[in-house]
Amino acid sequence: MSDIVKVAVDAMGGDYAPEEPVKGAVEAVNAKENLFIYLVGQESIVKKELAKYSYPADRMEIVPASEVIETGEPPVQAIQKKKDSSLVKALRLVRQGEASAFVSCGSTGAVLVGGQVLVGKIKGVERAPLAPLIPTAEGVSLLIDCGANVDARPSHLIQFAKMGSVYMENVMGVKNPRVGLVNIGVEEEKGNALVKETYPLLKECKDINFVGNVEARDIPKGVCDVIVCEAFVGNVILKLYEGVGATLIKKIKGGMMSSLRSKIGALLVKPALKETLKAFDASEYGGAPLLGLKGLVVKSHGSSKANEIRNSIFQCITFTQEDICGKIKEHITTEKQGE
Amino acid sequence: MSDIVKVAVDAMGGDYAPEEPVKGAVEAVNAKENLFIYLVGQESIVKKELAKYSYPADRMEIVPASEVIETGEPPVQAIQKKKDSSLVKALRLVRQGEASAFVSCGSTGAVLVGGQVLVGKIKGVERAPLAPLIPTAEGVSLLIDCGANVDARPSHLIQFAKMGSVYMENVMGVKNPRVGLVNIGVEEEKGNALVKETYPLLKECKDINFVGNVEARDIPKGVCDVIVCEAFVGNVILKLYEGVGATLIKKIKGGMMSSLRSKIGALLVKPALKETLKAFDASEYGGAPLLGLKGLVVKSHGSSKANEIRNSIFQCITFTQEDICGKIKEHITTEKQGE
Repeated sequence: MSDIVKVAVDAMGGDYAPEEPVKGAVEAVNAKENLFIYLVGQESIVKKELAKYSYPADRMEIVPASEVIETGEPPVQAIQKKKDSSLVKALRLVRQGEASAFVSCGSTGAVLVGGQVLVGKIKGVERAPLAPLIPTAEGVSLLIDCGANVDARPSHLIQFAKMGSVYMENVMGVKNPRVGLVNIGVEEEKGNALVKETYPLLKECKDINFVGNVEARDIPKGVCDVIVCEAFVGNVILKLYEGVGATLIKKIKGGMMSSLRSKIGALLVKPALKETLKAFDASEYGGAPLLGLKGLVVKSHGSSKANEIRNSIFQCITFTQEDICGKIKEHITTEKQGE
Repeated sequence: MSDIVKVAVDAMGGDYAPEEPVKGAVEAVNAKENLFIYLVGQESIVKKELAKYSYPADRMEIVPASEVIETGEPPVQAIQKKKDSSLVKALRLVRQGEASAFVSCGSTGAVLVGGQVLVGKIKGVERAPLAPLIPTAEGVSLLIDCGANVDARPSHLIQFAKMGSVYMENVMGVKNPRVGLVNIGVEEEKGNALVKETYPLLKECKDINFVGNVEARDIPKGVCDVIVCEAFVGNVILKLYEGVGATLIKKIKGGMMSSLRSKIGALLVKPALKETLKAFDASEYGGAPLLGLKGLVVKSHGSSKANEIRNSIFQCITFTQEDICGKIKEHITTEKQGE
């Protein structure tokens, strides 16, 4: 039983709760023998959902939580007031070491605040970044930070580069991940005060593979594995990625319906096109980890379906088995001693 | 002759110089009777190119300039040293009032620096923003600022909003243009220090139609006409727009070639698809104006062909006829008096 990984799942968070989170949890626990799941949520509702499936009862436990934090509630107040919410109860399980990780499709703000306040940061970590995987022409890259804390300092970006490298190397299996700094030009002297100050510091880091500045136009090409930026810029990149993709696809679909000839063609290209667009869909890659905490907190899209939640849970298993928290601690501590 | 608009064109700037700039200039002067063009560049080369076409000789003049500023040269030094370059000589024509506008496909850095140093800012304008038009689902929006001066102050963003509104209303014909502030959420209290400070100031501006914060995911939908942001963020938006579009289109094309069925379909959808993608191609909309100067400076893409250069020249005619410089001056001065 020693290598069993315990993951808490928010059964009440997201657009399709409780159906999809419960389904995803069942799929995950049926697929992995070393997985134990705490399904946190309103007992009668979760029980009813679970009754639809067959699963190993000794590796699935309902943890009752009477309240639900809604998207749109001010995060700090929600965390403070709704002590019996699925989010707060699940995060407490991580804090107490009962679970090593937590997956939620609920309010991003509440997950971010809750993770930092209730789970707590690893000693030495200045900020816990939210780091989603984004699709590129080559595969995926980690975009770090897309969180809620803007106006970062150079020391934050250095830690993001280290934490992101640990994640990509050990969870995603990318050997010697290339770290790029988002900038408005590739030359060292380009940029705003933050990146100008950060560049030489990243160059000095011996435990990362810094490849220099990266311009936004090259991000989709997959020129680096860890894309380091301040949260405001990261948020713009993440959301624009989604926005340009969605508008362009809509335009293309509309264009294909413009004549009889193109309509027939559209029918023929549809299966291939669907496959292509799936590969460029961020939701395929599991959730975004909130790194630097004393446990893993994964924020999955609000619109996540069972397969995405299942993938997020799988991420938690690798994260725990590879002892990412321990490895992050090591890198951050080395840095502190070196100063 | 009083309403003749005089435009200086850099015959030596861009990937396809001198062929395409000269061709674009000829097309423009043949299309508009109230246009006079100074073609600035190496005399023998420009003469040889011009000899290919027929055009009204009384409305086209070659201005000799022996030097060329190359892309990649440090802008400030290039402007200072190459006094007989096409860029410097053309900008001097604008400064002296010989031409009301200048179009170049040359080095962005040199155009930005040259415009500010040689043409000079309108009194009261703190910063001259570069404001390209970007394609959206609804048409185009003006993204202001994408220039070289990062780390802006709130007062800069306010002026960008005003200048951008004047441009969209008078050059692009958008009535009461909607102004949005790029932010990481739509709520007023969201964002970094800069946007938090800017939001209430924009709300107070009576001469613009401020519609609040805009998230990056909504920019491609066309939710506002003037997209206000600091230059670092603007640069990321502009380049990512281009990058996501290019990668996605490449993926889609590749996907269509994956089976015989989809290959046949691809042949059928090709014409419709081409039309759609053209509408989403930034280069169709002429160049990016550098606003707030005592004349218009338009930076066209380095890869511009004749039709894009011609469109940039047409922009210059409207800009001059609508007296955009005068209108900007008026708005900026009102603001100063109001303080």
